[in-house]
Amino acid sequence: MSDVNAILLLSCADSKGIVAKISDFIFRRNGNIVHADQYTSKTDKLFFMRIEWELNGFALGRDEISAAFAPLAKQFKMKWDLHFTDYMPRMAIFVSKHLHCLHDLILRRHMGELASDVEAVISNHTDARDLVEQFGLKFFHFPITDKNKKQQEAKELKLLREMNIDLVVLARYMQVLSGNFLKYYPDKIINIHHSFLPAFAGGNPYQQAYNRGVKIIGATGHYVTAQLDEGPIIAQDVIKISHRDAVDAIQRKSKDLERIVLARALHLHLENRILVYGSKTIVFE
Amino acid sequence: MSDVNAILLLSCADSKGIVAKISDFIFRRNGNIVHADQYTSKTDKLFFMRIEWELNGFALGRDEISAAFAPLAKQFKMKWDLHFTDYMPRMAIFVSKHLHCLHDLILRRHMGELASDVEAVISNHTDARDLVEQFGLKFFHFPITDKNKKQQEAKELKLLREMNIDLVVLARYMQVLSGNFLKYYPDKIINIHHSFLPAFAGGNPYQQAYNRGVKIIGATGHYVTAQLDEGPIIAQDVIKISHRDAVDAIQRKSKDLERIVLARALHLHLENRILVYGSKTIVFE
Amino acid sequence: MSDVNAILLLSCADSKGIVAKISDFIFRRNGNIVHADQYTSKTDKLFFMRIEWELNGFALGRDEISAAFAPLAKQFKMKWDLHFTDYMPRMAIFVSKHLHCLHDLILRRHMGELASDVEAVISNHTDARDLVEQFGLKFFHFPITDKNKKQQEAKELKLLREMNIDLVVLARYMQVLSGNFLKYYPDKIINIHHSFLPAFAGGNPYQQAYNRGVKIIGATGHYVTAQLDEGPIIAQDVIKISHRDAVDAIQRKSKDLERIVLARALHLHLENRILVYGSKTIVFE
Amino acid sequence: MSDVNAILLLSCADSKGIVAKISDFIFRRNGNIVHADQYTSKTDKLFFMRIEWELNGFALGRDEISAAFAPLAKQFKMKWDLHFTDYMPRMAIFVSKHLHCLHDLILRRHMGELASDVEAVISNHTDARDLVEQFGLKFFHFPITDKNKKQQEAKELKLLREMNIDLVVLARYMQVLSGNFLKYYPDKIINIHHSFLPAFAGGNPYQQAYNRGVKIIGATGHYVTAQLDEGPIIAQDVIKISHRDAVDAIQRKSKDLERIVLARALHLHLENRILVYGSKTIVFE
Repeated sequence: MSDVNAILLLSCADSKGIVAKISDFIFRRNGNIVHADQYTSKTDKLFFMRIEWELNGFALGRDEISAAFAPLAKQFKMKWDLHFTDYMPRMAIFVSKHLHCLHDLILRRHMGELASDVEAVISNHTDARDLVEQFGLKFFHFPITDKNKKQQEAKELKLLREMNIDLVVLARYMQVLSGNFLKYYPDKIINIHHSFLPAFAGGNPYQQAYNRGVKIIGATGHYVTAQLDEGPIIAQDVIKISHRDAVDAIQRKSKDLERIVLARALHLHLENRILVYGSKTIVFE
Repeated sequence: MSDVNAILLLSCADSKGIVAKISDFIFRRNGNIVHADQYTSKTDKLFFMRIEWELNGFALGRDEISAAFAPLAKQFKMKWDLHFTDYMPRMAIFVSKHLHCLHDLILRRHMGELASDVEAVISNHTDARDLVEQFGLKFFHFPITDKNKKQQEAKELKLLREMNIDLVVLARYMQVLSGNFLKYYPDKIINIHHSFLPAFAGGNPYQQAYNRGVKIIGATGHYVTAQLDEGPIIAQDVIKISHRDAVDAIQRKSKDLERIVLARALHLHLENRILVYGSKTIVFE
Repeated sequence: MSDVNAILLLSCADSKGIVAKISDFIFRRNGNIVHADQYTSKTDKLFFMRIEWELNGFALGRDEISAAFAPLAKQFKMKWDLHFTDYMPRMAIFVSKHLHCLHDLILRRHMGELASDVEAVISNHTDARDLVEQFGLKFFHFPITDKNKKQQEAKELKLLREMNIDLVVLARYMQVLSGNFLKYYPDKIINIHHSFLPAFAGGNPYQQAYNRGVKIIGATGHYVTAQLDEGPIIAQDVIKISHRDAVDAIQRKSKDLERIVLARALHLHLENRILVYGSKTIVFE
Repeated sequence: MSDVNAILLLSCADSKGIVAKISDFIFRRNGNIVHADQYTSKTDKLFFMRIEWELNGFALGRDEISAAFAPLAKQFKMKWDLHFTDYMPRMAIFVSKHLHCLHDLILRRHMGELASDVEAVISNHTDARDLVEQFGLKFFHFPITDKNKKQQEAKELKLLREMNIDLVVLARYMQVLSGNFLKYYPDKIINIHHSFLPAFAGGNPYQQAYNRGVKIIGATGHYVTAQLDEGPIIAQDVIKISHRDAVDAIQRKSKDLERIVLARALHLHLENRILVYGSKTIVFE
């Protein structure tokens, strides 16, 4: 007997009867709904929904659901995705020289908290190699220069495809990915930015925060889009600082935030709780 | 054309088809659902739901909904309440000598933020009288002694009934209400406790927090039950303190918290977002 | 017997012996130091100090301290100010149409929490008049148009001078003060900005926050300088929001923050805990 | 040329001239004070101070300071400790089965953020062995039963003494240390408690928090004393939860808190910023 659940994430123009039709679709096939949440944007007249039900006892096999649901989806012109809770995305982590977020993800995987397989760690430096290999993971080194960037990205993409990677995490990766790279992973690349976006976008946010004299710093987990630091925000958190905190203290405090915020954003993604909507996210917590 | 919504708050044993049946009930009568949220307690196998839809275009008049819904409610043995968004609860505020929460509620009413009519302010002291009357509200003085407590409560209850009060807010009221009083207002009395419950329950939590040397203090908004300080918690928040904060500084910082936490709890109640479940709350934010 | 304290706020180039010389200055005159805090900026080699001692038993009268301290200040080329804890700054509050911060300050004054006299409330609108006069305070209406701005500011300045105002609080005042106005009140004008600066500087930060889809909003209390929204930050705080919070909900949540952050910034100023240093503050909490 | 600083932590009855005498002591020997902070408890008439100065250029060698300072300390009947910023305490970490805090400390040591040598990891279980040895640290297994507890503690103490351990961190160690053990490490044992003390002291705070229905959970870093969960609190932090968080979700969220709060408490201890005062701490941040 399976304890796997199915999850539908969908959006469409708002209209009467959507909830009724969807829940009826599940009920008639003997599905038990364990979570349903919806949001209607009044300004844009759009409807968003996450609905999760048990496959155990459900009349359809998991391979049959999409076909059965398609007519209803078509009727309401939905954008929709179907997920199953036993699917573990195949994740690649990109990192440069700051390893705290990488280390944190490895720890969470080690503790069984990460519903994802870490298939590869990719870096433009070699600082992470020992740590990664120590935990039995695969490390790939793609040094990036102004000249070789395009070729290296092509090699990285090839590797990702060969490994069937379907989720990329930028765990303090200090290279900008090209638009070409991004189009292969729409809403599938999560970055941690070490500031409270949109404050201190761009380079060296620790120094920027110090210079401005803010009393609070933050970190932002977001999907990566072609507009740098403007991707849809998934999670943010902050911590207080004071005039006593020089740039190194700001960095030390921020690193704790970054680890937690990235993990939180990743967790929400892995539980299929996020719908991207323009430059924003709907997060069904 | 009405822009009033109906809200159903319900709970029952978990069972397949509840969501489908309820949303179908609304859909068949041409209702547009604007918010639906549910929660299933796996340990207790209980189902909780809040569903809100527009009356505009709905096939039933507001007086007909209860009767029409009753058979479905009976089928699933639901506990349920039906609310309308244009109903303004008639509120009485109880206060003693600390007036910051009272003042805050008056301010919010003044700014149109409080979806409730403040019908009366009741106090065992007279400190609040001037402020209350200055804002054109009714003030009632019921001094309490060990001897007259029972009689005074009876008078207060009589007054509340005469004024058709259906929500009581204890905005730092330093008298314990009797079980007899409480039974007239089940889940309809909201108290602000000036600590992060269950820490520092009982008297003088500021002093207790100071003595213990905690680094964070809190405030708790909760429904009042016969077990003092053990009622279902609606909202909590905290603020950092340090060794420099003597009892008076703790009090000053706490007062800001108390105002906000009480307002937040009250707001959730007035929007009919809370289901009480044993000694806990389900809050559909 | 007096229970007044003296407070020295000073800054100078860092140098050995400053703490020793200053504390010796106080000790030799039989002063009891109740608070001393210092900060040395290593990058700028600057020294900042706040030192507070009891006048009770001190060898010098309050009028004699400045002259006695001047030689030491000269030796270290200090910038310094001497304050006394019984001095109540004479405050004017500027406000436009949003009255929550004004109302909050009036409440705090009413509760005896504000170590300042509210001498006047000045507005470019009349919305605040009733509230202000209801509490027995003076209200002045200076409507501002594109044409009369300069003249009205001149009148406002004249009024402030006649009333000996030495602290101006912009409690959601939606007009930009001219550089001419500002030069009369250097580090004496405190503004509350309804965003987490530097994010969403400029107009309509609620809408900006909504558009960007941030998960946290903030408020900032700062001194006003000629560079709009770039003055030295005194205090900041934040609150979480979600996709469900439309602009009006963001506004409602932000208003609570604004009241608290402005009050906190003002409290720090009134206790003479702030040294301004370039575009930043040193806050000796 | 040394860049080591000396730090004095001291407390005594409050009295005039202490700050002047201490800063004069340093100044006359050509010391440059880089941090000085003090606190006077008015209720207890006690004076607390932390003062840090550069040894570079100081007239006394580090071995001469104590003898030179002793007369002044005697005059004011001070309790005092002298520390040097280049001293790395020799730390032992105790852990049971939950490894997140241990893993976090190892990460921080790996990143050079921990001003301490991790000399040994001691556990009553073997779950941590692989991780510990993988990072080249020493692991010791002391299984505890009702019968052997006293003997095992004696062996642990012997080991700690042989390794010259001067700081013990209980990183989720689920055994209660005896009073005999504690007396060898007064204010030198730091524990992380997985609740917001004093709420949910004792066993299984996650379950307790779930049962009570709190909306916020916390973690507490504190020194260990004979009264379980009543030691002086060093650091606390909190995180919001909702009715949706079952015990396992509470645990997952709490673990992030515990790691950060323990690290923060440890950091404050390692920078010699804490004075213990009865059952409370003075933390000079």
